[in-house]
Amino acid sequence: MRSYEILEKKRNGGEMTPEELAFWVRGVTDGSIPDYQIAAWLMAVCLRGMTPRETARLTQEMARSGGTADLSGIPGCKVDKHSTGGIGDKTTLVAGPLAAALGVKIPKMSGRGLGFTGGTIDKLESIPGLRTSLPQEEFCRIVREVGISITAQTGDLAPADKKLYALRDVTATVDSLPLIASSIMSKKLAAGADAILLDVKAGSGAFMKTPEDAAALAQAMVSIGTHAGKRTAALITDMDRPLGNAVGNALEVAEACETLRGRGPEDLTRLSLELAAGMLSLAEKGDHRTCLALAKQALRDGSGFEKLCEMVAAQGGDLSVLEDPSRLPQAAVMFEWKAAQDGYWQHADAQACGAAAVVLGAGRETKESAIDPCAGIVFRKKPGAAVSAGETLACLYSSSEASCRAAARLLDGACRFGLRPPEPRPLIFARVTRDGVFPVCELDKA
Amino acid sequence: MRSYEILEKKRNGGEMTPEELAFWVRGVTDGSIPDYQIAAWLMAVCLRGMTPRETARLTQEMARSGGTADLSGIPGCKVDKHSTGGIGDKTTLVAGPLAAALGVKIPKMSGRGLGFTGGTIDKLESIPGLRTSLPQEEFCRIVREVGISITAQTGDLAPADKKLYALRDVTATVDSLPLIASSIMSKKLAAGADAILLDVKAGSGAFMKTPEDAAALAQAMVSIGTHAGKRTAALITDMDRPLGNAVGNALEVAEACETLRGRGPEDLTRLSLELAAGMLSLAEKGDHRTCLALAKQALRDGSGFEKLCEMVAAQGGDLSVLEDPSRLPQAAVMFEWKAAQDGYWQHADAQACGAAAVVLGAGRETKESAIDPCAGIVFRKKPGAAVSAGETLACLYSSSEASCRAAARLLDGACRFGLRPPEPRPLIFARVTRDGVFPVCELDKA
Repeated sequence: MRSYEILEKKRNGGEMTPEELAFWVRGVTDGSIPDYQIAAWLMAVCLRGMTPRETARLTQEMARSGGTADLSGIPGCKVDKHSTGGIGDKTTLVAGPLAAALGVKIPKMSGRGLGFTGGTIDKLESIPGLRTSLPQEEFCRIVREVGISITAQTGDLAPADKKLYALRDVTATVDSLPLIASSIMSKKLAAGADAILLDVKAGSGAFMKTPEDAAALAQAMVSIGTHAGKRTAALITDMDRPLGNAVGNALEVAEACETLRGRGPEDLTRLSLELAAGMLSLAEKGDHRTCLALAKQALRDGSGFEKLCEMVAAQGGDLSVLEDPSRLPQAAVMFEWKAAQDGYWQHADAQACGAAAVVLGAGRETKESAIDPCAGIVFRKKPGAAVSAGETLACLYSSSEASCRAAARLLDGACRFGLRPPEPRPLIFARVTRDGVFPVCELDKA
Repeated sequence: MRSYEILEKKRNGGEMTPEELAFWVRGVTDGSIPDYQIAAWLMAVCLRGMTPRETARLTQEMARSGGTADLSGIPGCKVDKHSTGGIGDKTTLVAGPLAAALGVKIPKMSGRGLGFTGGTIDKLESIPGLRTSLPQEEFCRIVREVGISITAQTGDLAPADKKLYALRDVTATVDSLPLIASSIMSKKLAAGADAILLDVKAGSGAFMKTPEDAAALAQAMVSIGTHAGKRTAALITDMDRPLGNAVGNALEVAEACETLRGRGPEDLTRLSLELAAGMLSLAEKGDHRTCLALAKQALRDGSGFEKLCEMVAAQGGDLSVLEDPSRLPQAAVMFEWKAAQDGYWQHADAQACGAAAVVLGAGRETKESAIDPCAGIVFRKKPGAAVSAGETLACLYSSSEASCRAAARLLDGACRFGLRPPEPRPLIFARVTRDGVFPVCELDKA
C-alpha cells in the first residue's frame, strides 16, 4: 500500500519525494486515497512540518490538480496580488487600478468574504450591473484591453486544495504553516500570473497574530512562488485595527473611489501606494523609490481612478456610482456610535470590528448566508484620536436599528479608551523577498 | 463541534479529561465521530503521546465500549495471562494448568494466530472434538469446576478497540505505546479477571525488538491495569529465537503435554514455571520463591497435566491424544532440515522461523486463510549447539514436499552458524510490577 508508506514516512518526519507528492496529490484529487489517510497525513504534516522544497513541490502539484488559467494571450507582465484577509481591506480596488494605469497587467481572481473577513467580489457586486463571473475569454480580453479585470475564482482551480481545506477544517489541522502557505499559493500558481505580490496581515483581525508569524508565512509563500519560477514578494502589514474608515461592501467601494481621487484615509492611501509600487517593482518598472513615485503620480493625475472606471464599465457596472458614491445602494438605518467618555481612543480590535460588521449584515456567518451590500461601519475617528464624551466615533449602517444597537455593543467591547494616546503602531512592518525579510523603516514614510 | 476541540487539544499535546475520553470513545464506538477525525486523532496521539493517567482512562472507556464478561459467579481469585505473541509460545497450555492445579481460577479468552505469530485457540483446535467457542455460562461453569477454561474471544469485547485498530492499521499509527497498551489492556479489562499477568516478548520475533522497548510497553500496561484496580504484573521474555522445540499447532500441543509431564525443553519449562509462579503470586499464594516451588511441585506430581486433561475433557476434546500425542493429526510429509556445515549454531531468527512455519501451513497469511493443524517445525537442536554437516537440525511437517523445501530455504536464511558458540542470551530479562522494572538475575536460575 503506497499511501501507507508515505503516511509512515511523514509520521517519522521524513521528506516526501517529488514522486510521492505527485502520487499523494493525485490520490487526494481523484478520491483514491481515503479521507482517513488524508486526515492522518494532515495531522502528521501539522506536527512534523515540511521542508521548503517539499512545501514548494506539494503546492505545484496542488496547482496542477485541476484547470489552470491560460493567460498567454495577454502580452506584458501579469501581476497577481493577494491579501491574507482583513477588515476594511479594499486595497485591491485602489492599488490594482494604479498599477494597471502604469502598464502592469492585473488578471485578478478574487474570493468572497467569510466570517469577519471581507472579499473583493462582494464589494464589487455592490456596483449595480457589474458582472463578477466572467468567462475566461472575456476576462483575458478585458485584462488585455483595459489592463485589469477582477473575476470570481472558479471552482475547478486547485481542487486538491479544496479537498484538503475541507478536511483541515474538521481535523484541527488548519494551523500549519506549510498547509496554509500551500493552500494560498496553489490557487495563485493555478491563476497563471507571472508575478505575485502578497499582503500578509498581522494582528487581531488576521490569521497571524504577530508580525513575526506573518513574516514566517510570507517567507514560506515567497519560497513557494520562487520555486515555481514566479517573481514573488510580500509586505507584512498591520491588521490589528481596521484599514481605512469604511467596513462594508458599498461603503468600501465608495472609500476606494475617494482614495483614488486623492481624498482617502491616510493609512489606506499609504498602503495602496506601497502595494501598487510593489506590483510595479515585480513588473520591473524600476526600483522601489521610482515605483512609489509612479504610483503617487497615477493617484495625483487621476489615471488610477480612470482605470477603475474603465474596468467597471467593461464588466457592465454602472459607472455613475463611482462618480457619485451617494448613488450606491443606501442602508435603511443609520446609527451613530458615540464616545462614552473623554480621552484617547487607544485601540479598536479589528476582529471585533469585523464581527460588528457581520452583525450589521455586511459579512457572512456561513458560506450560505446572504449579505447586505449597504451595511457596514464608517469610522469618523480612528484609534489614536482624542475624543470627547458624546462625540460620534462611527456611523453604523444596517437594515434594522436592533442590528445597529447590537453592533454598537460589540464596538463598545472592542474599543479601549484611556488618558494617554496609544503607542504608535507601524502600518507596514516589513518587506519580504526571496532574499529575506527587510524591516520597513524610513523608506515608506515618504 | 466538541470532537474538533478534543482533536485540537490533542494536536497541541494537551491531556484529555475523563469526560473528553468518555465522549471520544463513545463517538468512536457508535460511529458519530467520522473516521477522518479519528484518524487525525490517532496520528496526534502517535506524535504527541498520552500521559499514563490519560492512557489508563482511555483503556477503561474502551473496555466499557461493549459487553464485559461477568465472572462474579466464579469464587476465588481469577487470573488472566496474556502474551504479546511469539513463535512456539505454548506457555498458556503449560502455565495455565499448573496454576489452576494450585487453586488459581484461569478464565482465559484467547485469539487466533495471524502472520508469523501463533494463537492458543488454533493450537487447541488440533485436539479432535475440543470446542473453543463456549457460551459464557459454560465457560464460567468449567472455570468454576475445573479451574481453567480457554475460549475464543468474542467479537463484542471492546468494539472501540476493534474500530481503532482497523484505522491504525491503515494510517501508520500502529507504532504508538499508549495505543498498543490500551488496545491489549482494553480487552483484558473487559474479560473481567481480578489480576493480569503479561508476558511481553522482546526480540526479532516480537513487536518490540529490544528488552528496553518491551519494558516500556509492560510498564504502560501494568500502569493501566493498576489504575483499573487490577493486580497486574509482567515478565519481559526473549523472543529472538523460537520458544521450545515445536512450532505448529498439533506439534505444540504435543510439546505442551510433554512439558507438563516433565519432559519438555528446558527454555519452555523454565518460562512456564515462571509464568505459573507469577499467576500464583498475583493470586496471593505467597512470595515468588514459594510460588515457584509450588509450580515445580505441580509439574513434578503431574497435577498440572491432570488439570489440562480435565479442561480438554470438559470442552469435549479427545483425551487420548494428550496421553499419546502420536494420535494427534499427522502431516503427510516429513522433511529433515540438515546442517550444511560443521560449527556452532549461533542464531535462529524467530520471525523468519515463524515465516517458515506459515509456508508449511501452520499459520495464516491473512485472517481468512485456513491453517493445517499438523504442519510445523520440530527443532532437534537449538541455537548454541555444536552441529555437524549433514546432521538433522529440524523436522519439517507439511502437506507437500514443495512447501517443506521452501520452508527449509527460509530456515537456511534465518539461521547463522559459525566457529564460536553464541553469547548466551537471557530467557527472562525483567519482572515489571506497579513498583517498577526489576532485572532478573540469580533469582530465576534456580
